[in-house]
Amino acid sequence: MQLDDFREVAANYKVIFFDAFGVLKNYEGLLPGIESTFNWLQENGKEFYVLTNDASRGPKELAESYHRQGLYAITPERIISSGMLAREYLDLKVNHGRVAYLGTESSAHYIETAGLKTLPISQLDLSDIADINALVLLDDEGFDWNTDLNKTVNLLRKRNIPVIVANTDETYPVSKTRIAIAIGAVAEMIEMIVGKQFIRFGKPDAQLFMFAYERLENVVPRGLETPEDGHISKRDVLMVGDTLRTDILGGNKFGLDTVLVLSGNTQAQDVEVQIRSTGIIPTYICESVLIS
Amino acid sequence: MQLDDFREVAANYKVIFFDAFGVLKNYEGLLPGIESTFNWLQENGKEFYVLTNDASRGPKELAESYHRQGLYAITPERIISSGMLAREYLDLKVNHGRVAYLGTESSAHYIETAGLKTLPISQLDLSDIADINALVLLDDEGFDWNTDLNKTVNLLRKRNIPVIVANTDETYPVSKTRIAIAIGAVAEMIEMIVGKQFIRFGKPDAQLFMFAYERLENVVPRGLETPEDGHISKRDVLMVGDTLRTDILGGNKFGLDTVLVLSGNTQAQDVEVQIRSTGIIPTYICESVLIS
Amino acid sequence: MQLDDFREVAANYKVIFFDAFGVLKNYEGLLPGIESTFNWLQENGKEFYVLTNDASRGPKELAESYHRQGLYAITPERIISSGMLAREYLDLKVNHGRVAYLGTESSAHYIETAGLKTLPISQLDLSDIADINALVLLDDEGFDWNTDLNKTVNLLRKRNIPVIVANTDETYPVSKTRIAIAIGAVAEMIEMIVGKQFIRFGKPDAQLFMFAYERLENVVPRGLETPEDGHISKRDVLMVGDTLRTDILGGNKFGLDTVLVLSGNTQAQDVEVQIRSTGIIPTYICESVLIS
Amino acid sequence: MQLDDFREVAANYKVIFFDAFGVLKNYEGLLPGIESTFNWLQENGKEFYVLTNDASRGPKELAESYHRQGLYAITPERIISSGMLAREYLDLKVNHGRVAYLGTESSAHYIETAGLKTLPISQLDLSDIADINALVLLDDEGFDWNTDLNKTVNLLRKRNIPVIVANTDETYPVSKTRIAIAIGAVAEMIEMIVGKQFIRFGKPDAQLFMFAYERLENVVPRGLETPEDGHISKRDVLMVGDTLRTDILGGNKFGLDTVLVLSGNTQAQDVEVQIRSTGIIPTYICESVLIS
Repeated sequence: MQLDDFREVAANYKVIFFDAFGVLKNYEGLLPGIESTFNWLQENGKEFYVLTNDASRGPKELAESYHRQGLYAITPERIISSGMLAREYLDLKVNHGRVAYLGTESSAHYIETAGLKTLPISQLDLSDIADINALVLLDDEGFDWNTDLNKTVNLLRKRNIPVIVANTDETYPVSKTRIAIAIGAVAEMIEMIVGKQFIRFGKPDAQLFMFAYERLENVVPRGLETPEDGHISKRDVLMVGDTLRTDILGGNKFGLDTVLVLSGNTQAQDVEVQIRSTGIIPTYICESVLIS
Repeated sequence: MQLDDFREVAANYKVIFFDAFGVLKNYEGLLPGIESTFNWLQENGKEFYVLTNDASRGPKELAESYHRQGLYAITPERIISSGMLAREYLDLKVNHGRVAYLGTESSAHYIETAGLKTLPISQLDLSDIADINALVLLDDEGFDWNTDLNKTVNLLRKRNIPVIVANTDETYPVSKTRIAIAIGAVAEMIEMIVGKQFIRFGKPDAQLFMFAYERLENVVPRGLETPEDGHISKRDVLMVGDTLRTDILGGNKFGLDTVLVLSGNTQAQDVEVQIRSTGIIPTYICESVLIS
Repeated sequence: MQLDDFREVAANYKVIFFDAFGVLKNYEGLLPGIESTFNWLQENGKEFYVLTNDASRGPKELAESYHRQGLYAITPERIISSGMLAREYLDLKVNHGRVAYLGTESSAHYIETAGLKTLPISQLDLSDIADINALVLLDDEGFDWNTDLNKTVNLLRKRNIPVIVANTDETYPVSKTRIAIAIGAVAEMIEMIVGKQFIRFGKPDAQLFMFAYERLENVVPRGLETPEDGHISKRDVLMVGDTLRTDILGGNKFGLDTVLVLSGNTQAQDVEVQIRSTGIIPTYICESVLIS
Repeated sequence: MQLDDFREVAANYKVIFFDAFGVLKNYEGLLPGIESTFNWLQENGKEFYVLTNDASRGPKELAESYHRQGLYAITPERIISSGMLAREYLDLKVNHGRVAYLGTESSAHYIETAGLKTLPISQLDLSDIADINALVLLDDEGFDWNTDLNKTVNLLRKRNIPVIVANTDETYPVSKTRIAIAIGAVAEMIEMIVGKQFIRFGKPDAQLFMFAYERLENVVPRGLETPEDGHISKRDVLMVGDTLRTDILGGNKFGLDTVLVLSGNTQAQDVEVQIRSTGIIPTYICESVLIS
């Protein structure tokens, strides 16, 4: 397996999309030295966005967590999270009543929109659900798995309402050797039990990439045969992630070149087997996004 | 939909296999008047067995729960449970070390076999698992779903061991209007996360039916063209259950005639849609097994 | 079930997205009287697009088929097909070599892009595949299912290349009472056999809706709090389709209001059961898009 | 990976169950030298049976194909095929009318039972199906995949009848480097399209093992604490196969020790990855069953 140097790869693109967990940070915090990567991006006039399957907080809180660790380059408007898609869905499609949720209070706070109240499943009274007009699965924390998942199943048997899964990840690493079950896997169990079709937001789905792409200045108008100087097209955008199933598949499908980094979910000794067995093929493979 | 009278149907068979939950009992206890059914069976010389996807206790404890409610016809040797299959598997295939489990202490006590110690996942130390040689999923109670399911996933990433699912049910009713998630659904989530093939015991699988069939006296030898008087063949056995996906599918596949009763999971207003949509077709449909 | 009048519903929106098959036409051709619907749209200044899971031909050929039947309102630039997404993917991601395909010659002709040759699987020589850099599943016609599906499986075992499914439909109606297997179902079988992750284009995926949405003039810039006069937002767009799993799920997820029509896949007597069992809920239900 | 010598392993068991394809024979015919294995079995008083997912012919024809190649040890009564299970099912559960099938004439001939006529889907008239009381999927040959699979889907939409899959294999090797799609994979596609639950016969299901186990003489009666001399228990039976998903999983689940051989589907370089990724663990691994 041939490894490429991230700097050399990135030099050929105008815009970089980064996954967050496993790329910029891990269970211990920011990757040591990550600042130099963002310094290089700014010195070389590269635009960048962070695309993350994270609905635990809003972009403002997510950005603050980078700032607290000394990385100031990542501002709220540079963060595109699956929680934002869930929020837009509720804003457009659910106009009144209450939205039940599984997750933390802060995750619910962010998705609250004009005319919508949120209610944690833990506080839900199954005999008073006539005005529950949606259910949102936000985070694996903030509820009792046994009691509240049973309540969730019963809610969905009584009320035929849209169910939004705001984070499609199945697991996430909590240490060098251990992982935890993410809400995406819980969602698949509930969906299988109730037999209904949930609405999922997050990579590999195209919408998260579209959200970021729409923020770019000077995007070449579709249909224009020969882009003019300064125009940005999908050919100018590079997606960087640590997970084949979400980051790389999604980036490829959206039409972007992709970089798989080995600083997160995918380990060096497994990468070739995984690429062959899944058929998900990154354009490049790099050790990490760190620039020495 | 034409309903048949259970007594008239049962009169044509020598042996009756009963599912337990939703057929003989429900969330409130025994079906009122169920004794008369068993009196009728005995007066008419019908043999019977109870085939249940239940690994929460052994046959002795299961029988006692019937006796405590005043039904003495159901003796331990008339009960075939999926827990018995799990126990046989461990006895034949796992000869030493410890067996980790999810479930109650009493469920684990039953599956303990010569040379095997059991260990609840809650007490498992992930740094001391070298002698964990199997994992058994027994019951949805007796553990903390969040903590212990995460430990289970990490155990299975470190140790490549057989995983036995001793109850394939996805849900069970806890009241007239509510259900609870059963260990079978939890098993499917874990299996999906770790990507391994678990070993499932319970209806609709043939093994539970075989266990019961082997107990019958005078079974006609396979290959014998014309059964002699008194011989029992699969044509003489009737399977009765409340669930298409387990009782009826399993009974049909094993070659038995089947009765769907409407006293449990399947409700009268849904039965025709469910039979058409699943393609699982019972030989008869009865209100219940009660005999007036 | 309460049926709405299509004209009254459509009057509240500025833009209408139509599915084609089952909405504008069926196995017998155009819906009789469909012209009046498009006359009404034009008289009332409604913009419209046709979003179709069809990769059998390009937009030009698709438009001509409407013109041949006397419907001239549907011009090529008003048609967004899943084949266009497949074409864009190949244009962006596959720069050289040959693209093997399952489908008709005309379907392949359309997806040919600069620097790419296409090759039907029927003409593929399994001993000469070093330059096959992608496989595209376009249509269920134009190949021998037995011979060529076996060749496809063997190609994918030897070459780890992206596989594009340009039509996600599982079946399509061929008469009032019969359906045929579509390439989407064939794709699922091949994917299951080779165990790889294919790239699917078509409803319910967001990309097809994106393609259409980008064509709209005067779309309100994202982030703008209060749209100005004449601005178009997702609130102004109505998606009309005959299939819950593709048209309605996709429209809902993209944030649009949706109309389920009963002139195609979904029949009046099944609609309530299907909505309840799938949890896919249209905003409105109309008999058809016909305007008397 | 440590390889065991088949003779040394087999010496510890009284009965050997063999898979056929990939173990005793391959796409070129019998494994050269296989006779010596069966000579050794007979000299050492080992009983044996062949358990095969094959519904293309009856045991008599299957045995003859061994005899034609000079292997006379395998008599019809030593062959247990998934076709035999399908035949028993039809005999017990379908008493009249016609059984439609996908497969060859010889495969259909074998499953014909008293009172049942078989009809190839190719000859089925969709307007005359009132007496079609079952559908059996027997073999991937003998029909036109496109025409007849479409007819099959339409038959199952009009008639709610049991569907029997008499061979669960997804693929089979046709040369050193190529495979073909087996009827088991076709069955999964049809099942997914019509959304019904088919009845599958074959490994890893317990029933095929039951059929063979019942043929053994002197099986220890269940419940007997201490087997007497000469009694045979599951501990005395060894299952040998080349496929983890069918032979090894099925043998393990039935409670048998298992041998994975590398002469068929599973290749030496993949075996460790496959065992780790599937969690299906054979008791032993041998190069082949050949005895030098």
